Amino acid sequence: MSVRIGVVGGGQLARMMIAPAVELGLDLRVLAEQPGMSAALAATAVGDYRDIDTVRAFARDVDVITFDHEHVPQPVLRALVDAGVAVHPGPDALQFAQDKLLMRARLAELGMPQPDWAAVTDAAGLQAFLDAHDGRAVVKTPRGGYDGKGVRVVRSAEEAEDWIRALAEAGAGDALLVEELVAFRRELAQQVARTPAGDVASYAVVETVQRDGVCAEVIAPAPHTAARLEVVAREIGLAIAHGLGVTGMLAVELFETEDERLLVNELAMRPHNSGHWSQDGAVTGQFEQHLRAVLGLPLGDPSPRQPWAVMVNILGGPTEGTMADRLPAALAEHAGAKVHTYGKDPRPGRKVGHVTAVGSDLDEVCYDARAVAAQFD
Amino acid sequence: MSVRIGVVGGGQLARMMIAPAVELGLDLRVLAEQPGMSAALAATAVGDYRDIDTVRAFARDVDVITFDHEHVPQPVLRALVDAGVAVHPGPDALQFAQDKLLMRARLAELGMPQPDWAAVTDAAGLQAFLDAHDGRAVVKTPRGGYDGKGVRVVRSAEEAEDWIRALAEAGAGDALLVEELVAFRRELAQQVARTPAGDVASYAVVETVQRDGVCAEVIAPAPHTAARLEVVAREIGLAIAHGLGVTGMLAVELFETEDERLLVNELAMRPHNSGHWSQDGAVTGQFEQHLRAVLGLPLGDPSPRQPWAVMVNILGGPTEGTMADRLPAALAEHAGAKVHTYGKDPRPGRKVGHVTAVGSDLDEVCYDARAVAAQFD
Repeated sequence: MSVRIGVVGGGQLARMMIAPAVELGLDLRVLAEQPGMSAALAATAVGDYRDIDTVRAFARDVDVITFDHEHVPQPVLRALVDAGVAVHPGPDALQFAQDKLLMRARLAELGMPQPDWAAVTDAAGLQAFLDAHDGRAVVKTPRGGYDGKGVRVVRSAEEAEDWIRALAEAGAGDALLVEELVAFRRELAQQVARTPAGDVASYAVVETVQRDGVCAEVIAPAPHTAARLEVVAREIGLAIAHGLGVTGMLAVELFETEDERLLVNELAMRPHNSGHWSQDGAVTGQFEQHLRAVLGLPLGDPSPRQPWAVMVNILGGPTEGTMADRLPAALAEHAGAKVHTYGKDPRPGRKVGHVTAVGSDLDEVCYDARAVAAQFD
Repeated sequence: MSVRIGVVGGGQLARMMIAPAVELGLDLRVLAEQPGMSAALAATAVGDYRDIDTVRAFARDVDVITFDHEHVPQPVLRALVDAGVAVHPGPDALQFAQDKLLMRARLAELGMPQPDWAAVTDAAGLQAFLDAHDGRAVVKTPRGGYDGKGVRVVRSAEEAEDWIRALAEAGAGDALLVEELVAFRRELAQQVARTPAGDVASYAVVETVQRDGVCAEVIAPAPHTAARLEVVAREIGLAIAHGLGVTGMLAVELFETEDERLLVNELAMRPHNSGHWSQDGAVTGQFEQHLRAVLGLPLGDPSPRQPWAVMVNILGGPTEGTMADRLPAALAEHAGAKVHTYGKDPRPGRKVGHVTAVGSDLDEVCYDARAVAAQFD
């Protein structure tokens, strides 16, 4: 009998777990939101991940539950744990990825470097934060945001009026997160895998290039990084993985400031876009590593295979025709590039795939990855 | 709509096409012999590949038909072609992989170096061949053999008496293949991918180590190979791919003789055990390359990623328990090794998986791959 892993969520992250699961002989079972999703090949159930009975029924036939996303509600997660299901990452860790206010408070306890922040419950509170921070700030809804959604840069409390009104309607206890607008030189990401027993493996710190709040490109390792900052990034990743009790893959999104400090921006407790390069650029890719970690298997080698790897997202996809129509031109562009598609219909701004190139000359690797990805525009 | 590839046969070769198909966004559909086979995840039909109606019905919903094995009978293949189905490799090429006598005759026409051979229809013919070759020869049934089955080294015609009797019973037209017993230094294999348009990509020539007629280990590239022989191996591979009109992956098994000649031993027109190293050791692995080739897509880069790759087959598998039981020990043995399992129950001698290691020190790479594979014994 092989080991059964249940993945809640049928998106591209679940899809990219299929290949390593097949290789290792693991029985991957996916609870998809709908039929025909990215991970449809491994979908053994379709249903609502917010419904306790649906998720509990799905979990009955697996050895461990893990996730394609962080949106499974805490009561559902707690019900699984109460039923004796192994859940990785568990609800105690996941809450910090689900609620940015909880995250900020916990990271502060751990002494992690982060932007100035506050929980604000009304316009006066927000205005006070603005007044203390040169009249600019980032307001975030603590829950449910992703890819730039639920995030707004404001110069006055009025610009967040709708969210503040929603707060008042939601009643007591709710707050918005407000953060200092960091003058950053660039964005980095640090990935760490951690097993339930506490074994860890760290990937190279990478540079992530965002466009319109969405990851467009990742360069691994982050070019021209001071050796000191590489160490700091790794230490931050390990401290958060251990401090929050993360199991599986953790991604820590970081700002590198103009004065060479690192500040924690966001967390993700699952394979992450910033680690897609590792499928083709590291000895053990993040999807295999995640499966190993949540099963408590020995972790694989996260070392790079080549000096440079560049991952370029395919955003939107072809305006006419299908992804498949573009394969001939894309594959002809560079024989060594790796094309990953997500089985999604093209739609403006949607992540429908990515391209990774690796090599020893960063300029060439960048050019190759971008040229191949551009064939899908 | 994505491109649909139909694979006849549900074994491990079809299984290992799943990962690259998912990556490229190709819709892989497998006609499996039985439920629960290695490629069960992609199986969309179960049935007998010798039955024309079964295969024709399966082929109706795909854009191209390819294979997990070479055993689909010619009348079935011809019926597909007559129905307008794209079949790669096609029946005209496949016949040479299906019938070793046809292969020997065609390779002779192409001027390929091969062992002395003859078609024999009776004991007298076999004895005459033996008398002309130091009293030893290899007798092969032209069809249906694999992994050492249907192959026998004989010193007298009596030792093949049963096969000769079967010949007589089968009636006119049948013959056995008899070949000179080659004094070889070692066995090599050359892989080539070829598209329907005639584009080709050659892999490094590799050394294959056989035990009891079954591939046990592959070293890529073949160590200490004269540069001249590397060129000859590649030229043989390309000449056979073009000469036989092969589409998809071709493997040419070669003898390297004591006097440094290469002789063609066997052919396989599909991904082949001698190329499993390329999944982890080449930029584009043979399974992705096969899919690209049969679809007429631009071929990927067959270059090695590291100076050395060693692939060790897992033969038989655990005598007690399952493959999954051994994963913790196997993965702990070497963090960089890649473990591939075939979803088969352990059984003495059966190929149930393989392990690949890559690196710059051949001794270390060999040690690592063998040590990990040994954990599955």
